Amino acid sequence: MSKLSVDHLLGIKYLKNEDINLIFDTADHFKKVINRPIKKVPSLRDITIANLFFENSTRTQTTFEIAAKRLSADVINLDIATSSQSKGESIIDLINNLIAMGVNIFVVRHSMPGIPEQIAHNIENKAHIINAGDGNKEHPTQALLDAYTIKCYKKKFGALKVAIVGDIEHSRVAKSEIYILNKLGVKEVRVIGPELLMPSNISELNVRSFSNMNDGLKDVDAILMLRIQKERMSKDTVPSEEEYFKAYGLNEERLKFAKNDCIVLHPGPINRGVEIDTLVADGRQSVILEQVKNGIGIRMAVMEKMAN
Amino acid sequence: MSKLSVDHLLGIKYLKNEDINLIFDTADHFKKVINRPIKKVPSLRDITIANLFFENSTRTQTTFEIAAKRLSADVINLDIATSSQSKGESIIDLINNLIAMGVNIFVVRHSMPGIPEQIAHNIENKAHIINAGDGNKEHPTQALLDAYTIKCYKKKFGALKVAIVGDIEHSRVAKSEIYILNKLGVKEVRVIGPELLMPSNISELNVRSFSNMNDGLKDVDAILMLRIQKERMSKDTVPSEEEYFKAYGLNEERLKFAKNDCIVLHPGPINRGVEIDTLVADGRQSVILEQVKNGIGIRMAVMEKMAN
Amino acid sequence: MSKLSVDHLLGIKYLKNEDINLIFDTADHFKKVINRPIKKVPSLRDITIANLFFENSTRTQTTFEIAAKRLSADVINLDIATSSQSKGESIIDLINNLIAMGVNIFVVRHSMPGIPEQIAHNIENKAHIINAGDGNKEHPTQALLDAYTIKCYKKKFGALKVAIVGDIEHSRVAKSEIYILNKLGVKEVRVIGPELLMPSNISELNVRSFSNMNDGLKDVDAILMLRIQKERMSKDTVPSEEEYFKAYGLNEERLKFAKNDCIVLHPGPINRGVEIDTLVADGRQSVILEQVKNGIGIRMAVMEKMAN
Repeated sequence: MSKLSVDHLLGIKYLKNEDINLIFDTADHFKKVINRPIKKVPSLRDITIANLFFENSTRTQTTFEIAAKRLSADVINLDIATSSQSKGESIIDLINNLIAMGVNIFVVRHSMPGIPEQIAHNIENKAHIINAGDGNKEHPTQALLDAYTIKCYKKKFGALKVAIVGDIEHSRVAKSEIYILNKLGVKEVRVIGPELLMPSNISELNVRSFSNMNDGLKDVDAILMLRIQKERMSKDTVPSEEEYFKAYGLNEERLKFAKNDCIVLHPGPINRGVEIDTLVADGRQSVILEQVKNGIGIRMAVMEKMAN
Repeated sequence: MSKLSVDHLLGIKYLKNEDINLIFDTADHFKKVINRPIKKVPSLRDITIANLFFENSTRTQTTFEIAAKRLSADVINLDIATSSQSKGESIIDLINNLIAMGVNIFVVRHSMPGIPEQIAHNIENKAHIINAGDGNKEHPTQALLDAYTIKCYKKKFGALKVAIVGDIEHSRVAKSEIYILNKLGVKEVRVIGPELLMPSNISELNVRSFSNMNDGLKDVDAILMLRIQKERMSKDTVPSEEEYFKAYGLNEERLKFAKNDCIVLHPGPINRGVEIDTLVADGRQSVILEQVKNGIGIRMAVMEKMAN
Repeated sequence: MSKLSVDHLLGIKYLKNEDINLIFDTADHFKKVINRPIKKVPSLRDITIANLFFENSTRTQTTFEIAAKRLSADVINLDIATSSQSKGESIIDLINNLIAMGVNIFVVRHSMPGIPEQIAHNIENKAHIINAGDGNKEHPTQALLDAYTIKCYKKKFGALKVAIVGDIEHSRVAKSEIYILNKLGVKEVRVIGPELLMPSNISELNVRSFSNMNDGLKDVDAILMLRIQKERMSKDTVPSEEEYFKAYGLNEERLKFAKNDCIVLHPGPINRGVEIDTLVADGRQSVILEQVKNGIGIRMAVMEKMAN
């Protein structure tokens, strides 16, 4: 297979295993390109990519911008706050206008779940939508780079136990990770967190759920930490930072419950001392910066396969 | 003629017919380029263009940015809100500094009429100013792309009746459209809107004025809708959105007063259900997205002819 | 010598004279490039430069962006206000992430003195930091371009008397200028300003201090005006704009105390009528726009030598 089965990357849910493998193989190739002295390829020289972040995220936007530039694409960053959104223009009208201007690929982040799907179903079909995070629903490129990073270290998925730790309910990263790990045939996907932060449909997700951190970490091969949203701290669901760290923060002692060669991932930006201890974040088992690096290769792969 | 008669594009008022025709012919050429697989030309490879939007407009700024990139120019978007304007630097000083840095073309939008002229008269004469909208005075690239779009559909201007609908008084788009349509020898330019929103010098503009929409639309070949500024709704001059739509909103029924092959234009972003009905905006006579597309070719043409 | 002795440009303090001369020689070369019809060189085609302005300065950021583009580098402008800084991410984590993404050079401005040093000591050593101004400590590229501009007009430094005028205490520009002029062997560096705005360690800086402007300007070859921060006007240390201008504003009359061929510099943006009179700012002795132009060549030189 040399083409994706989908026109848009809306969620891991919509991908076939062949799609995931094609993206991983392409990322392998681009990872080599990135390490060469000449880091650019001319693949998307005639492609224009627009970053449409209705929810701010300089970091994610920057990874897409750098990935696009490595592919020689033109990148347009739309300052949404000052855009015609403030003049009451609908997102669909805005995007159809940008398509008329010649934009080919849209990287969309929005606080409302389902917006990327809505866009994909209502625009002219020559453009492509990449979901860069929609509400608490999906964040497919993050899950792709997480699974790809696991593959780089563990080669095969079939025998692995992987734990996802944190606020599963409100995390789009967790959802996309659960989908991709199951698609890739991981032996066991575990979710660890306070019961109040587990999604109500947890029984349908093919995961094992733990509220005790040490139990959940036992013998796992990879730990996917989630960023805790400090905004939730004041609410009933999450206690103080200190209490959260005591119960679910990943420190060196707790990490010993996992396998000795267990790797630690985090989508960033990390809250040192809140969900992860500094010694673990910077420790020998942390592959957090490797994830960031793989994020460029994965996004190059997604954009390149989408455009061609 | 292969050169513009002007150094700056300050307003349609200052253009000769030869200038307009040169821009249209160049846009014809670039329209073909844009539709090729390889969409870029190296014309402005050594030109730097700065977007100076003292009034926000992501959409217009993006068209200039995309047009500039298609010509291989470097584009600098200045974030004016955070620029030294806030340190009290004058616009002239700022622009002279940017010229010293090597900027060749400035795309300027400002809420005060006449600012682009002031700049053009006070800077070093090797740089070029493109007015991207100044107060209620002119918006020449919008009028150029509107007239160009009409030409694409109607071929010749001499027999056409064209109606401009909305708040004529406060619209720079309307002013520039009136000037260009008259220069191009349109048979009749009509303006339609509430009498309170007609400019006081209407008698000098060589237009026929209508306060009744159906009368004004009778037998026209093209309708140029204006965006209604919702900010004005609260004032005496414009009633509520509903009442405005009732009197001056373009719906399918009303469109029947025009010729059967009449085309409908709008500078965007459109207010669906306020000045234009969704069925018309997305209907067979709407050329709104074609305008957006032509906007790239026209702006490429203006910048290329200005730089050379 | 063809390489800098430092990995980072943190301050003039850390540069050897050989470094300064290498930068000046390289700037001489790039100054010629900038004046050619083809203004770009492919030197940094595979380098990515990130602008990290924690304190806004559109003007300085733009000079770095234009300089980087002339070298064919990719430039990423991070919108810090909306970045993960607001999510409590540390600067070091942010920069290590950007290094993992492939960023090679960071241009950093911060209101706190010493931040660029802190960064340089805590990141992976393959990246380079350029200090674009840290608190009241240093602004090395500004001092480099100021000294370079003096050299362009005066050829040699050994016989020169140079005066720096304004709020010496709070000015990073003044500090860097004092360091570089002394390193380059200027005969006499003078500082002129209200006594309350002189740094407490003035006796260690190898300068002659004047509180009377006319005395300080006597027979100088170059005057480096500082921008007065209007924010300080309300405080005890600086009186009103009018009084400041009376005592320390540079007007034509006062300029006569200096040598007849004395040149006038200002880092911009200028406050006309506050620290400098319009007739002087635009007069025959002003080299302010020449400074801006040299700023591109100097920054190209710094980035090119840093990357190679």
